[in-house]
Amino acid sequence: MTNPEPIYDVAQLGHTELLTPNLDESVAFFTDVYGLYLVGEEPGAAHLRAWNDDVLTSLKLTASDQAGLGHVAWRATSPQALERRVAALEKRGVEGHWHDGDFGHGAAFRYRGPGGHQQEIYFETEKYRPTEETRPHLPNQPQKFDPQGAAAAHIDHINLLVPNVSEASQFQQETLGFKLRERLVPAERDEVGAWLSVMTKAHDLALTREPAPTEGRLHHLAYSVPETSDVIRAADIFMENDVFIEFGPAKHSRTQGFFLYVYEPGGNRIEVFTGGIHIFSPDFETVTWTTEAGGRGTAWGTAVPESFHTHATPTFPATQ
Amino acid sequence: MTNPEPIYDVAQLGHTELLTPNLDESVAFFTDVYGLYLVGEEPGAAHLRAWNDDVLTSLKLTASDQAGLGHVAWRATSPQALERRVAALEKRGVEGHWHDGDFGHGAAFRYRGPGGHQQEIYFETEKYRPTEETRPHLPNQPQKFDPQGAAAAHIDHINLLVPNVSEASQFQQETLGFKLRERLVPAERDEVGAWLSVMTKAHDLALTREPAPTEGRLHHLAYSVPETSDVIRAADIFMENDVFIEFGPAKHSRTQGFFLYVYEPGGNRIEVFTGGIHIFSPDFETVTWTTEAGGRGTAWGTAVPESFHTHATPTFPATQ
Amino acid sequence: MTNPEPIYDVAQLGHTELLTPNLDESVAFFTDVYGLYLVGEEPGAAHLRAWNDDVLTSLKLTASDQAGLGHVAWRATSPQALERRVAALEKRGVEGHWHDGDFGHGAAFRYRGPGGHQQEIYFETEKYRPTEETRPHLPNQPQKFDPQGAAAAHIDHINLLVPNVSEASQFQQETLGFKLRERLVPAERDEVGAWLSVMTKAHDLALTREPAPTEGRLHHLAYSVPETSDVIRAADIFMENDVFIEFGPAKHSRTQGFFLYVYEPGGNRIEVFTGGIHIFSPDFETVTWTTEAGGRGTAWGTAVPESFHTHATPTFPATQ
Amino acid sequence: MTNPEPIYDVAQLGHTELLTPNLDESVAFFTDVYGLYLVGEEPGAAHLRAWNDDVLTSLKLTASDQAGLGHVAWRATSPQALERRVAALEKRGVEGHWHDGDFGHGAAFRYRGPGGHQQEIYFETEKYRPTEETRPHLPNQPQKFDPQGAAAAHIDHINLLVPNVSEASQFQQETLGFKLRERLVPAERDEVGAWLSVMTKAHDLALTREPAPTEGRLHHLAYSVPETSDVIRAADIFMENDVFIEFGPAKHSRTQGFFLYVYEPGGNRIEVFTGGIHIFSPDFETVTWTTEAGGRGTAWGTAVPESFHTHATPTFPATQ
Repeated sequence: MTNPEPIYDVAQLGHTELLTPNLDESVAFFTDVYGLYLVGEEPGAAHLRAWNDDVLTSLKLTASDQAGLGHVAWRATSPQALERRVAALEKRGVEGHWHDGDFGHGAAFRYRGPGGHQQEIYFETEKYRPTEETRPHLPNQPQKFDPQGAAAAHIDHINLLVPNVSEASQFQQETLGFKLRERLVPAERDEVGAWLSVMTKAHDLALTREPAPTEGRLHHLAYSVPETSDVIRAADIFMENDVFIEFGPAKHSRTQGFFLYVYEPGGNRIEVFTGGIHIFSPDFETVTWTTEAGGRGTAWGTAVPESFHTHATPTFPATQ
Repeated sequence: MTNPEPIYDVAQLGHTELLTPNLDESVAFFTDVYGLYLVGEEPGAAHLRAWNDDVLTSLKLTASDQAGLGHVAWRATSPQALERRVAALEKRGVEGHWHDGDFGHGAAFRYRGPGGHQQEIYFETEKYRPTEETRPHLPNQPQKFDPQGAAAAHIDHINLLVPNVSEASQFQQETLGFKLRERLVPAERDEVGAWLSVMTKAHDLALTREPAPTEGRLHHLAYSVPETSDVIRAADIFMENDVFIEFGPAKHSRTQGFFLYVYEPGGNRIEVFTGGIHIFSPDFETVTWTTEAGGRGTAWGTAVPESFHTHATPTFPATQ
Repeated sequence: MTNPEPIYDVAQLGHTELLTPNLDESVAFFTDVYGLYLVGEEPGAAHLRAWNDDVLTSLKLTASDQAGLGHVAWRATSPQALERRVAALEKRGVEGHWHDGDFGHGAAFRYRGPGGHQQEIYFETEKYRPTEETRPHLPNQPQKFDPQGAAAAHIDHINLLVPNVSEASQFQQETLGFKLRERLVPAERDEVGAWLSVMTKAHDLALTREPAPTEGRLHHLAYSVPETSDVIRAADIFMENDVFIEFGPAKHSRTQGFFLYVYEPGGNRIEVFTGGIHIFSPDFETVTWTTEAGGRGTAWGTAVPESFHTHATPTFPATQ
Repeated sequence: MTNPEPIYDVAQLGHTELLTPNLDESVAFFTDVYGLYLVGEEPGAAHLRAWNDDVLTSLKLTASDQAGLGHVAWRATSPQALERRVAALEKRGVEGHWHDGDFGHGAAFRYRGPGGHQQEIYFETEKYRPTEETRPHLPNQPQKFDPQGAAAAHIDHINLLVPNVSEASQFQQETLGFKLRERLVPAERDEVGAWLSVMTKAHDLALTREPAPTEGRLHHLAYSVPETSDVIRAADIFMENDVFIEFGPAKHSRTQGFFLYVYEPGGNRIEVFTGGIHIFSPDFETVTWTTEAGGRGTAWGTAVPESFHTHATPTFPATQ
């Protein structure tokens, strides 16, 4: 056996921090329309959760002069796994530092990834404990299902723009044990997209080639909903609330996810996602897409809007 | 840190072997009505796959004088993981033996579990390679979606009856690294149900207390479909094809799966399943259900038919 | 041509009045949980609408010492149609009277139907006019889709218990032009159920045999939702809000509707309904069901709870 | 009362005849992929039905040198209604003629509509009678649900291109009693779209302005499926079978239908449709859309492909 064993030291995308120049409007969007719940506030920041997240919080919104990603955080599967991954990062020459944690989680190792994004890895996490009012009927659910807006259910994945997709993909595989599920390598071009996951999902992280001479940008953050009908309903909710729908609902080729993209008031692209392939085979063979000239094509041929290839946060050149 | 690290040495329920006294009728049901595909035959046995299984086969049907489980097989995440699990089984005093494998998979370690069922664990597996006719449009899918009948998509989980649920549950946890997700312990009674999984699903294995003075019986085998609407459609398909629907469509309390149970012509109970909670947190806290008097109650209160508590295969006393 | 022409003088079930001994709780249920909107109040009564009703109101709740039906009201397709139907009623010897209307509608002819229920027929109706806050994005929709609870969308049909189904069915056909779509006539028994509609639906009115020595009772009132997924979601909403689910979600044999029945706090049975056959052929042949021993069987074989055959409002003998 | 009474003399779009230069391929598409059933054949023509059509046939495919509409046929609600409508047509100066009918229907009055299309109106129709093999489990359904391909369920509506939308719309209203439900009148332009129905649907007929100096062209023919999930499934089916998807799945603004458009092998645009508003109020107020610059915009903002505004059959200039 020459194949290395798969690594299961990262459990999931744990939480993210998004920057927004319109904090109040962003909070209003994420709660009233996207359907998250506000669970903590501090000057210049808000902490939110989805009804089906079992942890206290999965999203921090931080006021900033421009939109973008504050940081993305991966949750380890154990304290030992955390130590192993930090050792792997340091062995690769990553310069990071430990911090004491934040609202909802404990000590985390923070570092700068190859595409310029702040990443961190951590284990200790505070669970969500329902109140009398939010107690679910079924105890295997973290919070009562009392839907508001699009009722985003669970943090799902993130898409980061990187100047060198292959390099960033390798980095995630070698340091944190991500599995490369799919990649897009148009004929006569470098790899322009990589879809990686840590457990059984189609992706927890997508890496897409950065079209502008900049780095550290966010393409989108996604929460999942249970079914296609929930994405359809979300589209109606966004329509009724005058939220700009950029793309979807439609079905991706890569991951086969059923998607819907909007911009939150801060400018960040946010997705409502469901479905997608599930990968249970430990020897799943990476799918290399080569037949398309480029882009992030859709399964059914739905046209991809130009902005989907160009808009990211912070915008470049800066428009704020 | 006193908690042991979670083990990720088993990837999934790999395949099962069902016994049937009506092999031809069973094959016809599983293909034309349930929607699987026949990929291999030999005297007295047939090998089948679901369109979204990425391996060659996930079900063997074997002619027998009575219905029931031939064996259930767990797929390891690597050759090394396989060795570790066999070592753990042997350390616990399990007497098993290696065999050379079967249609679609390589060497497997076969043993008798605490409830009397034949189990095996293996790694080497043959992938499904589509023909020109079955080639999917999207290369991240194993087979063209060309639905027949209920279009069962993917092997999902199995429910075994065991005389001692707690003991059998402990066995699966300690030998193969199953995680105990939910358990049903009615007041003043022993544990009557346990739901365990190996990765992120609500369950790959359910253990339910055997009501009869026998052992080794199968409660049901389940394949998943993508969405609730597929279960609803399956109900119509079964209705139109005069298949006895025992229970559902409805929603379970435990696992929150949306389910539908029928009997295949051999007598085995077969489920069409979708949804269910997904468990990404590595420190998910086992949910203990104590508020019900017993049984396998439903989320919405749908009555559970008596047969669901009594029918299993082989039937007892034997009726064949 | 010997067949009489079909009559299209009644457009739909226009509105109903339900009696409730717990008006405040009933209003809270119908708004917060069932998803209607309060559009008018007066001492001892409340007027409600569904978001997709294009008229101002479709439900009046009236405080009473016991639950039941106040009246059921059919909307004529024109003033001339109204006159023709009143003439037909009077020709048949019905003693009724005109009244000036009520909140949301104009002059109505009120009379007592053969099963003892108060019925009325009317034409003049007030449309719903959205406010700035409730204005929909699409002008072909009466009200913004801003779902609360089960988001009941549109008044659909009513089921009345009558001592003599055949007689009551004939009455509706001959006086108001109802079309008999389906009937249940168990072997060696009288007709026990009739499903009638005025336009293209499977039913606007169901008549079921009254099991008790009483009359004028309500079996259930139903609002529709767009799709099966909305009924499934409603079941979760009811579960989370501790509403007793009597029956469903499941699929009826007659009408093929996908249904869910609960009791509102006043005791009346309320349905969430979707689907059902649509009847466009003007010469649709009435379907007579004779193969079942009785009851209101389900398409997939889901057991019908005993209460579904016995509970009605007011309860008999009176329990209030 | 100054408003004329609504007319209910037409029950539905009864059937259509499509012309195709590739009859065999068109038949194969409509049966294997779109999901209709072949019920009759003759030299140069084929007769098809959908599983949920209660009549014998709703589509005739006729071999021709170019694609397009053979004729569109409206079914009257009674023989008397048929006579009234023919009288209304003749009173308006329409020159038509009676013919003896065709496979599946009796005497019909054929004439040329104002946009140049052949129309006919008829009453006598042959019902579908299931065989042993196609007998449904539920007798209120015409045919067993044994889905193939997209499983198109029921003939729904047709969209015709006409040089003068207002004139053609008036014609349908005045001669056959169509109700004008919605119209699109961009600022400073003539009416470019009209949606009309005969009973409770959002539309049985759409009229769109012909962009080319020609007449008699077909924009599309639509069959309905029960739910959104069926349209989504149809998209997967078309994708897997290499059928060009022009547009959708997405939601229309006008009618609110959830749609999917493909081209059949003959070149005609065919839709899979579900949902849409239902109009029960007899005094529904025509919705006039004026806020858009033109086109057939979508509810969620999905871009409309240019071909949707230009492609019609026969193509112009002729490409065959």
